Amino acid sequence: MTESEVPAKRPPTLTDVAKLAGVSVATASKAINGRGEVRATTRVRVLEAAELLSFAPNALARGLLSGRTGTVGLLTSDLEGRFSIPILMGAEDAFGAGQVSVFLCDARGDAIREKHHVQALLSRRVDGLIVVGSRTDPRPPLAGNIAVPVVYVYAPSADPKDISITADNVGGGRLAIEHLISCGRRNIAHITGEAGFQAARDRVEGATAALTAAGLRMVGDRPYFGSWEESWGRAATHMIVEQHPEVDAIFCGSDQIGRGVLDALRDLGREVPGTISVIGFDNWEAISADSRPRLTSVDMNLKHLGAVAGKRLFEAIDGTVPRSEELPCRVVMRESTMPVG
Amino acid sequence: MTESEVPAKRPPTLTDVAKLAGVSVATASKAINGRGEVRATTRVRVLEAAELLSFAPNALARGLLSGRTGTVGLLTSDLEGRFSIPILMGAEDAFGAGQVSVFLCDARGDAIREKHHVQALLSRRVDGLIVVGSRTDPRPPLAGNIAVPVVYVYAPSADPKDISITADNVGGGRLAIEHLISCGRRNIAHITGEAGFQAARDRVEGATAALTAAGLRMVGDRPYFGSWEESWGRAATHMIVEQHPEVDAIFCGSDQIGRGVLDALRDLGREVPGTISVIGFDNWEAISADSRPRLTSVDMNLKHLGAVAGKRLFEAIDGTVPRSEELPCRVVMRESTMPVG
Repeated sequence: MTESEVPAKRPPTLTDVAKLAGVSVATASKAINGRGEVRATTRVRVLEAAELLSFAPNALARGLLSGRTGTVGLLTSDLEGRFSIPILMGAEDAFGAGQVSVFLCDARGDAIREKHHVQALLSRRVDGLIVVGSRTDPRPPLAGNIAVPVVYVYAPSADPKDISITADNVGGGRLAIEHLISCGRRNIAHITGEAGFQAARDRVEGATAALTAAGLRMVGDRPYFGSWEESWGRAATHMIVEQHPEVDAIFCGSDQIGRGVLDALRDLGREVPGTISVIGFDNWEAISADSRPRLTSVDMNLKHLGAVAGKRLFEAIDGTVPRSEELPCRVVMRESTMPVG
Repeated sequence: MTESEVPAKRPPTLTDVAKLAGVSVATASKAINGRGEVRATTRVRVLEAAELLSFAPNALARGLLSGRTGTVGLLTSDLEGRFSIPILMGAEDAFGAGQVSVFLCDARGDAIREKHHVQALLSRRVDGLIVVGSRTDPRPPLAGNIAVPVVYVYAPSADPKDISITADNVGGGRLAIEHLISCGRRNIAHITGEAGFQAARDRVEGATAALTAAGLRMVGDRPYFGSWEESWGRAATHMIVEQHPEVDAIFCGSDQIGRGVLDALRDLGREVPGTISVIGFDNWEAISADSRPRLTSVDMNLKHLGAVAGKRLFEAIDGTVPRSEELPCRVVMRESTMPVG
């Protein structure tokens, strides 16, 4: 291996060092930063490669190295903090406790306010930016020339060249249906929010695929689009049970819809989970964890999304170019889908 | 008026300028910063007073004056962002749209993480700090020597010399009972969270005072302390209705308890609001606004708390010493307490 393997036009990156030393980027990072377990011979090889390439760790890495702290800005438009606070926590944890501070700014969906916050964060010398969308639809990339790396989370950037870390909502819809089928259900309806939301459409796509794969059709032959609220869950349930009394499971596009469904089924004398199963989406514990019965729900793993975004941002600050990723959801099972023996 | 009216030992403040010009601090601020409507003669008088006193607006004020932006740190331990995001929005709005960015850091109730975030914020040259507690119990003041002004919101600092902006929870309990009495109720029970919370005890104090003032006693002769969850609301309701069938209203210490109460009353065949009224606390819209019936609730005006904290922080940055304040709650009336004619 020779120095000529390194592209000449840009400063060497951690990836170049790793390649030259014949180790993974993660191992090279650990060796240089003195974190984690690395064999002594490996560490020496990495440090020699770094010296050969005149590799200068960037500001954030130097900060971590010297015990000083880095700072990352998180820009959100999440008026309740319900999505962005777990993502913030995950991103901080990705760097190790007390290594990095994430500063959250709320743009409230307003482009001018967003621009103002970005300027404030950049003028305070943040090392990178995480942008959290308020819904999963693609959003425009940040305006202007941003001098630090940016990672988009929850909502992807509309520019495919940007780095976006999102939840696999199609997969989430599939998981929900597969779980209901596992519980012995065959006549499954789907009540969800506004069709204008990418999240609603993606979950319908996954649900439909899973039903088709099992040789089943959605009860009513269509999803019931409406709103994300409890009252829609109640109204749609009355309609479905009246028109399709054979229904034995309902997949809900949100936990709030799920609460409405549980309420209406109790009024209708349909026992959950005895004769009908209900699964929500979001795993919003304030809504799902203390209902009657407690609500099974699909979880988008927001904290993990934040952790991956933090790691990718760190790599980008470090000069490598991470790829966008779509991460799997999981089912958190509670009483509302428990098969009754 | 003479220059001798100004204390000699410290730089002149906006309050001094206002006093000398014979106007309010707010008017002096508007005149100097060129914001809001101020009569030309008043503006001249204020600017003359400022010149006479060699008044130098501080960094934040100068920033506002010149169109540059100030930055305030908000330190929270609110794992859901439910309290801190509205407070953040209120604080930003107090400065005028796009004037100030508030950077939120989440300490997660951990003193070491808190110290780390404070250092990160201070090293990024924030002009002041807002500290938001996760419950209303007094909290220890920030450790170390903080070089910028600090305002505590929601939870007061345990040090009475600090500036704390809190919601009047005693008053909130009083308002809830007075509202139920206005709706014609006489036999009022109170179901609330853990007695270890200051918020629970304060609301009991206010509720008891309002009942006593009306010549009434709490049903069961005591509050029902338990947890803040729905399941406690359900369990306590069954117990109260069985032991005290005359109960015609329930004041709940949280909206989640309120949801459990509504559920249990429906099971028991007690019609809300026909034969019994229910009021919650928090006005958490995801919980209260789409229940059946929709839940009347006491609102702590978190956004307003944030706005007042922002204003007081601005004054403190400006060199004046604001006082702590306890701000009133309000009742947001919905169907669950509507008198039925």
